[in-house]
Amino acid sequence: MESFISIEKKPDSYAILTIAREPVNSMNLDLWRQLSEALDQLEGDSSIRGVVFQSGLKRDVFTAGNDINELFAPKSSAERYRDFWVTQSTFFAKLYRSRLVTVAAIRGACPAGGCALALCCDYRVMTDFGNIGLNEVALGIPVPEYWALLMQNTIGQRQAEKILPYGLLPSAQEALAMGIVDQLVPAEQLTHTAEEVLKKMLSVPFDSARHATKTHLRGQFSKRWEEFCVKEAEFGWKLISHPKTVAAIEGVLQKLSKGKKD
Amino acid sequence: MESFISIEKKPDSYAILTIAREPVNSMNLDLWRQLSEALDQLEGDSSIRGVVFQSGLKRDVFTAGNDINELFAPKSSAERYRDFWVTQSTFFAKLYRSRLVTVAAIRGACPAGGCALALCCDYRVMTDFGNIGLNEVALGIPVPEYWALLMQNTIGQRQAEKILPYGLLPSAQEALAMGIVDQLVPAEQLTHTAEEVLKKMLSVPFDSARHATKTHLRGQFSKRWEEFCVKEAEFGWKLISHPKTVAAIEGVLQKLSKGKKD
Amino acid sequence: MESFISIEKKPDSYAILTIAREPVNSMNLDLWRQLSEALDQLEGDSSIRGVVFQSGLKRDVFTAGNDINELFAPKSSAERYRDFWVTQSTFFAKLYRSRLVTVAAIRGACPAGGCALALCCDYRVMTDFGNIGLNEVALGIPVPEYWALLMQNTIGQRQAEKILPYGLLPSAQEALAMGIVDQLVPAEQLTHTAEEVLKKMLSVPFDSARHATKTHLRGQFSKRWEEFCVKEAEFGWKLISHPKTVAAIEGVLQKLSKGKKD
Repeated sequence: MESFISIEKKPDSYAILTIAREPVNSMNLDLWRQLSEALDQLEGDSSIRGVVFQSGLKRDVFTAGNDINELFAPKSSAERYRDFWVTQSTFFAKLYRSRLVTVAAIRGACPAGGCALALCCDYRVMTDFGNIGLNEVALGIPVPEYWALLMQNTIGQRQAEKILPYGLLPSAQEALAMGIVDQLVPAEQLTHTAEEVLKKMLSVPFDSARHATKTHLRGQFSKRWEEFCVKEAEFGWKLISHPKTVAAIEGVLQKLSKGKKD
Repeated sequence: MESFISIEKKPDSYAILTIAREPVNSMNLDLWRQLSEALDQLEGDSSIRGVVFQSGLKRDVFTAGNDINELFAPKSSAERYRDFWVTQSTFFAKLYRSRLVTVAAIRGACPAGGCALALCCDYRVMTDFGNIGLNEVALGIPVPEYWALLMQNTIGQRQAEKILPYGLLPSAQEALAMGIVDQLVPAEQLTHTAEEVLKKMLSVPFDSARHATKTHLRGQFSKRWEEFCVKEAEFGWKLISHPKTVAAIEGVLQKLSKGKKD
Repeated sequence: MESFISIEKKPDSYAILTIAREPVNSMNLDLWRQLSEALDQLEGDSSIRGVVFQSGLKRDVFTAGNDINELFAPKSSAERYRDFWVTQSTFFAKLYRSRLVTVAAIRGACPAGGCALALCCDYRVMTDFGNIGLNEVALGIPVPEYWALLMQNTIGQRQAEKILPYGLLPSAQEALAMGIVDQLVPAEQLTHTAEEVLKKMLSVPFDSARHATKTHLRGQFSKRWEEFCVKEAEFGWKLISHPKTVAAIEGVLQKLSKGKKD
């Protein structure tokens, strides 16, 4: 299996995790598995207190979200989809309540699953260009339930209502105004800023007190998410096996394929 | 039974629903029944994807809220009040989770029940004058529980705490700042703006994905509201039968009657 | 037992409650007991409709929060800590849902338990200097669960996430921007402003309608808080008996002791 994840340990007790699956970091089952293993490894390493997530792609894309092939029922199976969904959701739930301080360094485009990953972090630094959001509806599929609730946790119910049902993908500036991201910087300052933010968040030495407090705010939601995902995978498979969804996804695949040829 | 509701179907798959019960759209049992039937009819019509709610009154009033006579126990009965309350609450709960994209076009005054109706829509355009809020406490009755929670869903707990217990009725400008409404326009642009907003919200063609996503954010609350309303009607009847409330409502009725004579 | 609380009844149906335990209003078991009795007394007095909480200290401190000695396990016992925690939490829960309109007049420093008390009020006026927050993590202990949720109720989950896990203590200006407090005034106007705000909040005469509406927004949380506190006291005792916490608290005690000598 090709490796999409690399981890660089830095002197000040943190790591930088780089995701690189050219051309756009489409997140397939392999990528989610590698992310899960990487998170487990970092959480199990007592010398590590925080992590920055970044893209290692050539173009300005954090990740384009889930690999559309995983959502195209004719190319998957109920078993594979369940594995894909549970692996991904368990990773999200664990990341959301992680003992580590987590910062997303978002360069450029960050739709769908990439946005969900960023929302599970403790802080989001983004380039002053690009866009970010849960735009599934624009592709003809609902925003997954816990992703919608995750956005609600972050920006409030009303703001979530104004964007999610309409498949909108806010620009970096709009996302900052709504609270989807916490800070915008020029691309050349992205990694440095993310590291500086992380160091500041780590400046109080009491890791277990910090984590217990984070758990008060995120723990229950994270546990419900993890418990729900097997059931959600069943519902999701029914949804993506539905002829209407298959047609919608096929339309997206054809556009992507046409885009490649152009 | 006199008809208070008219529906105009528009070419772009939406309808405009006009409420007109002179002089101020007081919402009595008949009006709530007609609203329920109209909503059921629109939801059952596959050619309709959205609806604008507006007032057809001569004066600048969206609606003055519940007909005070329905809240004056000596003129009602436990049975009628339950029917009134359940019809109204079921309508609200269904509207809140409707498959339709719903826009309230609020011209002028929008207190109490009128505000609750507007809050159940997906978007609120208001004239740049008038006021809107759940001001029941100013009349001596509590804001109904699910109306208070509906306001909390929309503007957050803290903002709701700052207005609801004190019977405040924010101006259009204050309401915009708090997030009770989404946009203010001059009266002559009200309907047009509401239609333009609705068309934009309908521009993504995937209705079932949009509705499933809306349901993630509003479905559970809507279901709890519907389940609670029979019990709430019992509590409400006890409350409005209480001599203190009867006296408070009688005071309001006398003021209204004096107002008519002046 | 020395008295730390004084109550002044004012002509317009409200009282001013002054807390004075020099030098910094450290809240020990005695102080919490007296606050509880004072609240019960005011709630039982039908001539009283509202209350302002203020500090009677020489220096500009609302309160410095819980007496650190109560959190230093070697100087307490499981029984005393439970009594301390349950007395305090029951007071908070009752204050949060009080029939009284409650205003905190915050002069200067307002960390930890002082902030929790202020957050349980209906309105917070603060001097234009000082700081306020739940900064427990800076001392090596978690923010208590219901305190974290109380902050979340007030300023939203995301804002709470950005400050609580890092032991931050926002300045008055930052606290206003975040919504932790509602208004800043020069110190010489503090009490007067708090009284004017209270009078305005009391201007609608329908106390039971107002309280029922407040209960819709705060009642369930308050009840859960009260029910949870005995169990939380057990968890808390385990936490503060842990050698790591004892060491952290001892560090704070030594700093405080050094500060006194300097």
